[in-house]
Amino acid sequence: MFSIFPINGTISDINGFYCDGIAGGLKPNNALDIGFIYSDTLCNIDAIFTNNNFKAAPLRHYLKYNKKFQTNFVLINSKNANALTGEQGIKDIDDIFNNLNFELKNPIMSSTGVIGVPLPKEKIIDAANSFDLSSKNGENLAEAIMTTDSYPKSCLYKIKLQDGKSFQLGAIAKGAGMINPSLATMLCFICTDANIPQSDIKELLTKYTVTTFNAISVDGDTSTNDTVMLLSNGKSNSYDKDAFAQALKLVMEDMAQLIVSDGEGAKKSVAFEITGAKTYQEAQIVAKALSNSLLVKTALFGEDPNWGRIASTIGASGVECSENSLIIKFGEILVYNKGEILFSKEIELEAANVLRDNKFKISCDLGVGKYSFTAYGCDLGYDYVKINADYRT
Amino acid sequence: MFSIFPINGTISDINGFYCDGIAGGLKPNNALDIGFIYSDTLCNIDAIFTNNNFKAAPLRHYLKYNKKFQTNFVLINSKNANALTGEQGIKDIDDIFNNLNFELKNPIMSSTGVIGVPLPKEKIIDAANSFDLSSKNGENLAEAIMTTDSYPKSCLYKIKLQDGKSFQLGAIAKGAGMINPSLATMLCFICTDANIPQSDIKELLTKYTVTTFNAISVDGDTSTNDTVMLLSNGKSNSYDKDAFAQALKLVMEDMAQLIVSDGEGAKKSVAFEITGAKTYQEAQIVAKALSNSLLVKTALFGEDPNWGRIASTIGASGVECSENSLIIKFGEILVYNKGEILFSKEIELEAANVLRDNKFKISCDLGVGKYSFTAYGCDLGYDYVKINADYRT
Repeated sequence: MFSIFPINGTISDINGFYCDGIAGGLKPNNALDIGFIYSDTLCNIDAIFTNNNFKAAPLRHYLKYNKKFQTNFVLINSKNANALTGEQGIKDIDDIFNNLNFELKNPIMSSTGVIGVPLPKEKIIDAANSFDLSSKNGENLAEAIMTTDSYPKSCLYKIKLQDGKSFQLGAIAKGAGMINPSLATMLCFICTDANIPQSDIKELLTKYTVTTFNAISVDGDTSTNDTVMLLSNGKSNSYDKDAFAQALKLVMEDMAQLIVSDGEGAKKSVAFEITGAKTYQEAQIVAKALSNSLLVKTALFGEDPNWGRIASTIGASGVECSENSLIIKFGEILVYNKGEILFSKEIELEAANVLRDNKFKISCDLGVGKYSFTAYGCDLGYDYVKINADYRT
Repeated sequence: MFSIFPINGTISDINGFYCDGIAGGLKPNNALDIGFIYSDTLCNIDAIFTNNNFKAAPLRHYLKYNKKFQTNFVLINSKNANALTGEQGIKDIDDIFNNLNFELKNPIMSSTGVIGVPLPKEKIIDAANSFDLSSKNGENLAEAIMTTDSYPKSCLYKIKLQDGKSFQLGAIAKGAGMINPSLATMLCFICTDANIPQSDIKELLTKYTVTTFNAISVDGDTSTNDTVMLLSNGKSNSYDKDAFAQALKLVMEDMAQLIVSDGEGAKKSVAFEITGAKTYQEAQIVAKALSNSLLVKTALFGEDPNWGRIASTIGASGVECSENSLIIKFGEILVYNKGEILFSKEIELEAANVLRDNKFKISCDLGVGKYSFTAYGCDLGYDYVKINADYRT
């Protein structure tokens, strides 16, 4: 028996964790753009990174140096991704850490922003040397890591175990480019004072990434910088694997939902629920094909219940399914039933009504097996074009 | 020795071919929406169809009945795709042909428009029965098959052979949704009075589809209705395989370029030229990943030479390539050279200048092999969203 409940606060409210975000001059107008997570004891850590072949320098730096999977410090900047910056990108990170005025154990860097611009390391060194490592300003950090995000993303949970002990688990994240997951950077830092064995960190992070962040972002088609990292400092001296797993799933779902709801310019958050697929992989393929289709996204923006585009996308995805086994619903409204077109004027109006909400579900039963997967997407409108046409300026 | 030259006119100027397009009441405002290609002698034919699992009824009708690869009549309508209409969709086509007042041999139907709406067959029968089979109005047909196209697409060539004989080859096409090739219907009808053996039709159509229509449309991720069809009535009594092959390549390139230039709302036509790939397939994968990337398209719309998005898309495509082998050019402007970022303010201005044109090339040398492929794409702006958000209304 255990209980999990959301509490006010952010990751810096967890025992032993300290955070802040400050204006380091990377963004214009004195906006917050650089910050840190510090733990007063060494943390067990692990991370899931992008599958992109051109991993950004901070990811390569971690993979090269952090063989012990322990750290007490993560430095995070926005506005510059330090990606496609070659060996110099890694050397810049070393230079930064070698020039800091405080002592750190296996420090980690994480970056997000424009690709292919050398890291402004002098600015970063100056900013980092002004950090107050005793700060408890997680909100500022959540703001400092934003790029095209329209709001900071943060959550905190308390987990009470049967033996009366308890621990906390929270996360901050950035990411908003999930309208087409291709290339959209997302960062998520999960902190806890639970006392997790190293092996459980990897296992649970990997397990829940599939149904959370990977349900909004396509495997093998991700940004240069995508990172999900978990830091555990063990200071609560308590742990229960089942309780922790459930809480971690909640935290990762929270962050994934906040990211997809903040899709650049998006007004609608849509769950594409696929059932009846021949294999789990085929359910994933269809769900992601739908959440990525430009024609589906623009139809949703126009609140047009154009189920033909849904069907055609399923057909184009190449998975096993026939016209005579497929069922399509908008919310609870059945619009296509195994070859039978049900689209009267009345049903069309009801389906259009579903699309007027800002959160709804589109369900497709392929009718050829027992596997299911749900992907999360959003609509695509004029604001997406506006945000991305002049991202760098 | 042979010579190929473009001439004024369209497919109905070819000996033995007759075409027209009329207003059948499928589109509003008395717009042209239905037409035909008629040949006064039986044609050898073949066709390349979509890979979509849910092939539209006219495609399934062709595959079911046209085993002899011969016809003298193609009926084409816009506004309704007759897709996802099950067995009824095929029966509707039979009903239409059974109710026409003229005698036809293996008539073929081709449709484009909204998916999942029963074919308005009475309107189509009425319209078709008013056709004048002696019409030579290819321009009207090219207009009648348009959906979101902003202009009709047509070309005609004359081919003179060494023996003094000559033949003609021309095409009409529709298609404009190639900003994201997913689901964008394209139809192309190629007519000739050359005397082509049946086996050459299949061979040459397949060969040039790869570098033309498939370079603007992704294999296995196409609409329910995509069709490229070739009709040869042999009336010139002349043929030379090399001459015909070269002319066919020209015609198909013309049509593919017209389609991509008419990308819904697009202002810029872009060639993504990939060289130095490990395999031909990998060159194709990268070229198409670039021409399909939303972030690349919106950057092009914003005339932003954001080469980092190009590099990241290549990295995300999963093909073999390293940061230290990659070269990226906008037009002739080198912006990234094997790990070296060359992006000074001056070079950025020069690169931005290239993007101000309405037609340019982006070249990427992967530096790991000898294979190359060029894909054609366009930018994505506000008008794309506008066109697709309310396509059905």
